[in-house]
Amino acid sequence: MVELVGSVNLDTIRAAHERIRPHIHRTSVLTNSWLNDACRASLFFKCENFQKVGAFKSRGATNAVFTLDDEIARGGVATHSSGNHGAAVARAAKLRGIPAHIVMPSNSAKVKIRAVQSYGAQVVFCEPTEKAREIKCAEVINQTGAVLIHSFENEHVITGQGTAAMELLEDISGLDVIMCPVGGGGLLAGTAIAAKSMRPQIKVIAVEPQNADDAAQSFRAGRRLVTEKKFTIADGLRTNIGEPNFAIVQQYVDDIVIVSEEAIVLAMRTIWETMKIVIEPSAAVPYAAIAERISDVERKRVGIILTGGNVDLDALPWSSSRDR
Amino acid sequence: MVELVGSVNLDTIRAAHERIRPHIHRTSVLTNSWLNDACRASLFFKCENFQKVGAFKSRGATNAVFTLDDEIARGGVATHSSGNHGAAVARAAKLRGIPAHIVMPSNSAKVKIRAVQSYGAQVVFCEPTEKAREIKCAEVINQTGAVLIHSFENEHVITGQGTAAMELLEDISGLDVIMCPVGGGGLLAGTAIAAKSMRPQIKVIAVEPQNADDAAQSFRAGRRLVTEKKFTIADGLRTNIGEPNFAIVQQYVDDIVIVSEEAIVLAMRTIWETMKIVIEPSAAVPYAAIAERISDVERKRVGIILTGGNVDLDALPWSSSRDR
Repeated sequence: MVELVGSVNLDTIRAAHERIRPHIHRTSVLTNSWLNDACRASLFFKCENFQKVGAFKSRGATNAVFTLDDEIARGGVATHSSGNHGAAVARAAKLRGIPAHIVMPSNSAKVKIRAVQSYGAQVVFCEPTEKAREIKCAEVINQTGAVLIHSFENEHVITGQGTAAMELLEDISGLDVIMCPVGGGGLLAGTAIAAKSMRPQIKVIAVEPQNADDAAQSFRAGRRLVTEKKFTIADGLRTNIGEPNFAIVQQYVDDIVIVSEEAIVLAMRTIWETMKIVIEPSAAVPYAAIAERISDVERKRVGIILTGGNVDLDALPWSSSRDR
Repeated sequence: MVELVGSVNLDTIRAAHERIRPHIHRTSVLTNSWLNDACRASLFFKCENFQKVGAFKSRGATNAVFTLDDEIARGGVATHSSGNHGAAVARAAKLRGIPAHIVMPSNSAKVKIRAVQSYGAQVVFCEPTEKAREIKCAEVINQTGAVLIHSFENEHVITGQGTAAMELLEDISGLDVIMCPVGGGGLLAGTAIAAKSMRPQIKVIAVEPQNADDAAQSFRAGRRLVTEKKFTIADGLRTNIGEPNFAIVQQYVDDIVIVSEEAIVLAMRTIWETMKIVIEPSAAVPYAAIAERISDVERKRVGIILTGGNVDLDALPWSSSRDR
């Protein structure tokens, strides 16, 4: 764990950026005067919803796949994912010309299954539990000799995710705060190391759904807790924070705050309406903390990583809440 | 009419751009590799959905309001609009510090009424017919001495709208085609003059909903026809093309093609899903013609003006079609 913490640093993040640059977008940073007025701050949104496969996950997955030695790479890669990481690994493997095996829960959204298949990856279905995913993925690895690209407990994934914050701090000067959501903690760990290394005085604030607040509870307790979870609309953030991720978070993150489901849906809708961009619920979580005045950002320059834009347009949270 | 045609040219468009530049965004041009692959072309989307008030209408309205002599301006401005032009005039008047009177149909969306009011304009309601709007607006002008800023039959509005194409051609070299939707023809007239003046070999293709195809019929007939209309989801394009606009279109536009309602909804959804941006139905109309192979753009560099992003998130066309 300590080794992993050490191996993610600004040098490795910069090297990762060079490595993945041909394969990813340097995404836009958008601002919105209405939102700035509403919260009396200057918000800078790093639009990873515009990233390849529609999410920051492309960064970490591409870095991890392209870091592999040729010999190991030839055996292929495997992961388990119901969402963006699976598509990102599949795409990176296709770019490198190696096989990919993606274990997906049998109840995954069809559009996500098709996305993975469109990159030529082999999809292996399993029961929709965390345990079943891990077991099936281990089986696949045993059978195929593929190497695991875990979605967040992987130093090269964390390093790759850190390139989003690196670009944001390169493009926007004088940030007082940087905010991102936390699920497994891959993005948060990379973001925190990149941001604190480039600008030590910056505050790194993570935001988590109240219904899946293991990272916030762990942060307060000073040790990693595995907590009971309720359903959250922020489907990218349902997982527990990883062990190496938590070690980095303890060292580099200033605070983890929580937001309600209602606040997430309202924040998502506000961003769609004012900024005219499509973001997924998980991406709305940091702005929810600002809109609800849980994080005080008045008169500050705030970088926010919008994590992704993959949503089911037939099941938007406001239309389903209207139907209920 | 001939005078008007002459007064809109690349010089006046450049002057308009200088005039409005402090008050509008130079909007991004986005590309998407998935869409490019799907239609075997290079598409460049000029994102006026990111423009002030969420639509290109800011350009023309701001130019018209800031072109007024001080003495005339002091009397205020008036217009009738159920949509983006009303908000754009209200905003421009606020920026110039003059009164604005916006005549709106009594059944206008609440969000649009609030938008106009948020700029301090006086909203005057009328019956929801074109005739009632014109009569009420004439009354308001009589009573207040305000000057009419028509949403498309106005040379300064047309000139202002032309700045979007001007920016697009400045930013993207070698365009073979430029496409935009046509309703009243303010955007189309400005776009056509800007594009043909800057790059004579470019093809200017307008796209119109089949259910409101007066411009396409007029273009074929060689004279302006006022046609029967059916309902179209593309609410910005329900109006007849204006007289001066049609004169410009006859001179500068290469073709006007039509698209079905289904094609518009599908194109809108495709752009939301692949590009992760929110556009209104009218903005999807040009891409609909490409997706349906009505306009052949294979191996071409195509500029597309995405006109705006103001949609009611509670009444998206795909959710309502599902409910039916």
